[in-house]
Amino acid sequence: MTGHTPLKLGMVGGGNDAFIGAVHRIASRIDGEFNLVAGALSSTSEKAQASGQALGLAAERTYDDFKAMAIREARLKDGIDAVAIVTPNHMHYPAAREFLKRGIHVLCDKPLTATLAEAKKLVKAAEQSDALFVLTHNYTGYPMIRQAREMVAQGALGDIRVVQAEYPQDWLTEAEESQDNKQAEWRTDPERSGAGGCVGDIGTHAFNLLSFVTGLTLESLASDLTSFVPGRRLDDNVHVMMRFQGGARGMLWSSQVAPGNENALKLRVYGPKGGLEWSQEDPNYLWFTPFGKPKRLLTRGGTGASAMAERVTRTPGGHPEGYLEAFANIYTEAAAAIRAKKRGEALPPDLHFPTVQDGLTGVQFIDACVRSSNRNGAWTSF
Amino acid sequence: MTGHTPLKLGMVGGGNDAFIGAVHRIASRIDGEFNLVAGALSSTSEKAQASGQALGLAAERTYDDFKAMAIREARLKDGIDAVAIVTPNHMHYPAAREFLKRGIHVLCDKPLTATLAEAKKLVKAAEQSDALFVLTHNYTGYPMIRQAREMVAQGALGDIRVVQAEYPQDWLTEAEESQDNKQAEWRTDPERSGAGGCVGDIGTHAFNLLSFVTGLTLESLASDLTSFVPGRRLDDNVHVMMRFQGGARGMLWSSQVAPGNENALKLRVYGPKGGLEWSQEDPNYLWFTPFGKPKRLLTRGGTGASAMAERVTRTPGGHPEGYLEAFANIYTEAAAAIRAKKRGEALPPDLHFPTVQDGLTGVQFIDACVRSSNRNGAWTSF
Amino acid sequence: MTGHTPLKLGMVGGGNDAFIGAVHRIASRIDGEFNLVAGALSSTSEKAQASGQALGLAAERTYDDFKAMAIREARLKDGIDAVAIVTPNHMHYPAAREFLKRGIHVLCDKPLTATLAEAKKLVKAAEQSDALFVLTHNYTGYPMIRQAREMVAQGALGDIRVVQAEYPQDWLTEAEESQDNKQAEWRTDPERSGAGGCVGDIGTHAFNLLSFVTGLTLESLASDLTSFVPGRRLDDNVHVMMRFQGGARGMLWSSQVAPGNENALKLRVYGPKGGLEWSQEDPNYLWFTPFGKPKRLLTRGGTGASAMAERVTRTPGGHPEGYLEAFANIYTEAAAAIRAKKRGEALPPDLHFPTVQDGLTGVQFIDACVRSSNRNGAWTSF
Amino acid sequence: MTGHTPLKLGMVGGGNDAFIGAVHRIASRIDGEFNLVAGALSSTSEKAQASGQALGLAAERTYDDFKAMAIREARLKDGIDAVAIVTPNHMHYPAAREFLKRGIHVLCDKPLTATLAEAKKLVKAAEQSDALFVLTHNYTGYPMIRQAREMVAQGALGDIRVVQAEYPQDWLTEAEESQDNKQAEWRTDPERSGAGGCVGDIGTHAFNLLSFVTGLTLESLASDLTSFVPGRRLDDNVHVMMRFQGGARGMLWSSQVAPGNENALKLRVYGPKGGLEWSQEDPNYLWFTPFGKPKRLLTRGGTGASAMAERVTRTPGGHPEGYLEAFANIYTEAAAAIRAKKRGEALPPDLHFPTVQDGLTGVQFIDACVRSSNRNGAWTSF
Repeated sequence: MTGHTPLKLGMVGGGNDAFIGAVHRIASRIDGEFNLVAGALSSTSEKAQASGQALGLAAERTYDDFKAMAIREARLKDGIDAVAIVTPNHMHYPAAREFLKRGIHVLCDKPLTATLAEAKKLVKAAEQSDALFVLTHNYTGYPMIRQAREMVAQGALGDIRVVQAEYPQDWLTEAEESQDNKQAEWRTDPERSGAGGCVGDIGTHAFNLLSFVTGLTLESLASDLTSFVPGRRLDDNVHVMMRFQGGARGMLWSSQVAPGNENALKLRVYGPKGGLEWSQEDPNYLWFTPFGKPKRLLTRGGTGASAMAERVTRTPGGHPEGYLEAFANIYTEAAAAIRAKKRGEALPPDLHFPTVQDGLTGVQFIDACVRSSNRNGAWTSF
Repeated sequence: MTGHTPLKLGMVGGGNDAFIGAVHRIASRIDGEFNLVAGALSSTSEKAQASGQALGLAAERTYDDFKAMAIREARLKDGIDAVAIVTPNHMHYPAAREFLKRGIHVLCDKPLTATLAEAKKLVKAAEQSDALFVLTHNYTGYPMIRQAREMVAQGALGDIRVVQAEYPQDWLTEAEESQDNKQAEWRTDPERSGAGGCVGDIGTHAFNLLSFVTGLTLESLASDLTSFVPGRRLDDNVHVMMRFQGGARGMLWSSQVAPGNENALKLRVYGPKGGLEWSQEDPNYLWFTPFGKPKRLLTRGGTGASAMAERVTRTPGGHPEGYLEAFANIYTEAAAAIRAKKRGEALPPDLHFPTVQDGLTGVQFIDACVRSSNRNGAWTSF
Repeated sequence: MTGHTPLKLGMVGGGNDAFIGAVHRIASRIDGEFNLVAGALSSTSEKAQASGQALGLAAERTYDDFKAMAIREARLKDGIDAVAIVTPNHMHYPAAREFLKRGIHVLCDKPLTATLAEAKKLVKAAEQSDALFVLTHNYTGYPMIRQAREMVAQGALGDIRVVQAEYPQDWLTEAEESQDNKQAEWRTDPERSGAGGCVGDIGTHAFNLLSFVTGLTLESLASDLTSFVPGRRLDDNVHVMMRFQGGARGMLWSSQVAPGNENALKLRVYGPKGGLEWSQEDPNYLWFTPFGKPKRLLTRGGTGASAMAERVTRTPGGHPEGYLEAFANIYTEAAAAIRAKKRGEALPPDLHFPTVQDGLTGVQFIDACVRSSNRNGAWTSF
Repeated sequence: MTGHTPLKLGMVGGGNDAFIGAVHRIASRIDGEFNLVAGALSSTSEKAQASGQALGLAAERTYDDFKAMAIREARLKDGIDAVAIVTPNHMHYPAAREFLKRGIHVLCDKPLTATLAEAKKLVKAAEQSDALFVLTHNYTGYPMIRQAREMVAQGALGDIRVVQAEYPQDWLTEAEESQDNKQAEWRTDPERSGAGGCVGDIGTHAFNLLSFVTGLTLESLASDLTSFVPGRRLDDNVHVMMRFQGGARGMLWSSQVAPGNENALKLRVYGPKGGLEWSQEDPNYLWFTPFGKPKRLLTRGGTGASAMAERVTRTPGGHPEGYLEAFANIYTEAAAAIRAKKRGEALPPDLHFPTVQDGLTGVQFIDACVRSSNRNGAWTSF
């Protein structure tokens, strides 16, 4: 994953106090595939400049707005190869559009957009561009998730019957949004987040993960969204029942008001031949429970690890990899795709980063959850 | 719990090859509170006699049918004080009625009955009798479940917001009922089990447990019952969303087709002040997660155990108690109640065994799940 | 395990406030194999009478001293078949002797005696008696320990190389013995416990368990016994290195001053073909780690359970059995042996209760640990 | 941790097939503190060149031997600031010496050297140099280990009584060294590893970790080193008993023949006020067990995380960090120290990377273990 000059990366959003910007920067750097060289890091000029300086960006590549950055970088001889968009949801579409139309590859945070209408426009924009669009549904980068996907595809469980996905957190148990917490403010603001609160922020992660692993297509859902904290404008607890093409059934729970849960994303999948169980907080393990046989604990880098897991593994079994490495796997696969594009070659067949189409599916999921809940949980086609 | 003459116990059902009969016998014996002295152990005379002999019952107290037993034992000077009814569901009501009307105390397996109509009749029969009716929803006997109930009641979590209950198994992943498996046969037969399969067999356990711990009253539910195994006549997977009085929301999943799960009953409860998490397969632990503070692992018999937990604890922390001890706690509380009755005293205030009313609620839950599922998951009042 | 008249049991020690007496009584009762009918329950007459009454013993079978009990019960037509000796260690030998010489079977708590000299005399007494001597090293009764023993014997690990045994507790972290805690008083008193404190009380459990599972014979050991609590007269922390016949090596740690540990007995065994790991506090699980293959979690009553485990199992997988059931397995095996004796038959071949010889080995282990530690940890032959 | 030009890094060893070289490169890159610009990556010219090319090093900075590299880089205007030495143990001293005497900072893998004599010479070389010497005992970089150290120092446990450290692996269960496994070859070769096999490779990690957390000074030890695999020239299993200044006692087990263990480094520490427990394979958790209170599970980035933990934390609780991030913490602290040196300032007070002195202590530990074992486990002063 090394041995070539790093690609040049720009960033939109991710200024000083944004948690996810720092994550993207580390992830882009872990395998030496990207160098951050330009940024429009904040919506206010002052913060944008301060953040650029703090990150060691050249002054002339520290932009006050993303459009200026897209225009100038596209013209530079050594302009950025790709841009990471790490703003609140409502800025994803307008920002991505500017880079896509100038042929600059985009890595964009999830959910794809704040509204379904924008999501469809962004799909169109991506289709019309030569540039790649990579959605950082980062949990798909975990090696044992890759292995789970491979095992399901190879029929280790038989035809899937039941899927249980959940993603509880507790950080919004109280009204953080009125405590000057920026992260909480925009996530509970329909203007910036869209119609989904918890369902958009983390429910969509759980849904993306179950889709990635099982390959199932959702047919319809019935949901019950709740807002428990007084004054909160968006849902903070999400209950969904799901029916998939082919007859599988599923449940999804996400919550931001469940004390004791940090980022307890968990997936369980069952078919007639066996089950799989995975927890994001202990990501180096995958339980495989073949029916009628003892449970097996598969470990990343250890015995039983599959080819798809090994391909995205850096350290041997027992030396845990974590969230940043999984995130980096998305970046490194994006780099491989960008390099193939540069060489005029087809994309390598073994890349699995989420696409703009996955992003659209995610926004459709949010939209369907909100509609079903508004119709008193009626089954809503997808 | 000793020091007095054991009570005399009879049993209906529970012949040689019945798993649950043996469990009841051990549970009745652990604290020395009951002696098994009579039985109508099988629906066929031959098996009834063989089983009676194997258990060392006197020939004249080994009955071919429960009615004969009720009549004769009620007349004996040293006739049974109580009877345990451990038959398939459809026999609960007819059997219980015979003993109740003759003043013999009843300990009856769950669900209360196979139909809602019978459940209501049984409630009436119990109300009209001087005898006690104890429902062996055995999981309520676990010390850490008692502690969870006590903590919720004392406000340790604040007003409950979210309840997640689940009870997956895997033993019906294949068509056991056509493999000469008696346990599977009656549980998948609507004539003997009622309209609920998995929901009646174990979903009702999960529902009873969440009710016992939280004290919440269900308002309505939306459910999706599925039968995955070809030819199966009752549901083998259960998804339910729940709304409780006061605004709490919940989810319940039970399944008998989830490979790798033995009896993975699990309960999680969240309020604004904290959360609780308990797993039946590791019952000596209770996670308490006060909001904003480190997680605490409470242990049965150990530091942090509460009065209600200690009252039903036999061994010190780190010497695990299990399923049989929890089951025995129901029997021992029943014995305390029976002895109080005998002495003409009011029941002690600290008994928590499930009652006929809890049984009715359970059958109503099954009924509502089946009705909601039949109406495509419409929210159904309870 | 039922269907015959229960055997008649007496008890020496185990009065009102003794934890272990209650445990023995429940264990003797779980499978309906014993009825407690006589007792010399305390060393003071007053307590002995009060305890006998509390347990419902007949007044004439509530004795003030064990010798009187042995003499009288031996003469009674329906005298006790067996006696449970649950006193502090220094009383084991004098009590056991009286019953053995009158042909009354003995179940005796561990360690066998307070001194090596007594242990040898007790072995002789047992050999000269027709009665059985059963040592309640109760942890050997756990089903998954039986399975571990079976797997090692069948070569699943190959020739054992390394054994790691540990048994930490925390209840003597402070000077409990000066706080009027009877349990702590005698366990830290050399007059009543013998020369070993922690090593005798729980180190000997860990040693017995590793011997039971591996079948290895200890050759020599080097130990470092420490007493951390000021004023304590016996060791409260035990470190031992061990060499076994055939070349295996081992370590044993036991402690009563390790905060956070309740009864954390744990055994790990390794050979060239695989490893086993078991924890007493989670006794329904056994990890089997075949070399080069995924880890397997075997469960009591579940898939992968062996014949030896199944024979001592009462409930299906996922319905946990605990400490009392394991203890009961020793009693029930003792009952099977006693019944065989009564019928004049040879003992059944599949009984695995610990014997007086195991008890001697345990006392030799304690003695060797004390001697090695006194010689500054010199390797001491066994 | 960014915003300044990365430091220039060279590397000695770490060619194409070396696991640890890749780890160092990622670790140096995660926080953007180092750029790899030069290397003497292999002992054979051909491999050195191929590896340099694969890593994208300039041809003129791809050296065939480390001495040439030290000489030339020291003269270059933009020569390397620091060098990472990641060779087999016997090359640490000769390589480090060349860089230290030319004022180039050294980050060196553990153990410090293959022999005690060399270790002492290296300490002298480091003392005589202006350059820093950083030993990559990487496990000290884990945030929860930092917290453990802080808690012990602040007296949360009281004066330490007992320390249990272990580091089992299984990768040398069979004779890997005769299967053309380079990693196994040098680690089992006394010429390249020194007199310790398993004790030097991983025992020293466990010892360093316990010293780092407890601050205890070893007084003497008794050890039993074994080589189980036929033909193996160095120990593959290590048992050690330890006595510390002040009276604390400890045990250490490391093994490379324990099937099922990957990198199961684990530390437990106990004092009169509480205990701590940490496992490297699940590094985001730290159990704190205050005596007489419920167990608490502290999480990295979560509630209860301390200042020292937060300082080396990148992601919020529940988004696990792993081995590479812990390793990177050593590099990033080294960078902070190097930058302070460059500015002519004193080192910041809150850096905790292991030093050459820690390295000497580690080699003394290995040496004492080998000596004690050779003297039949006699207590050997340290």
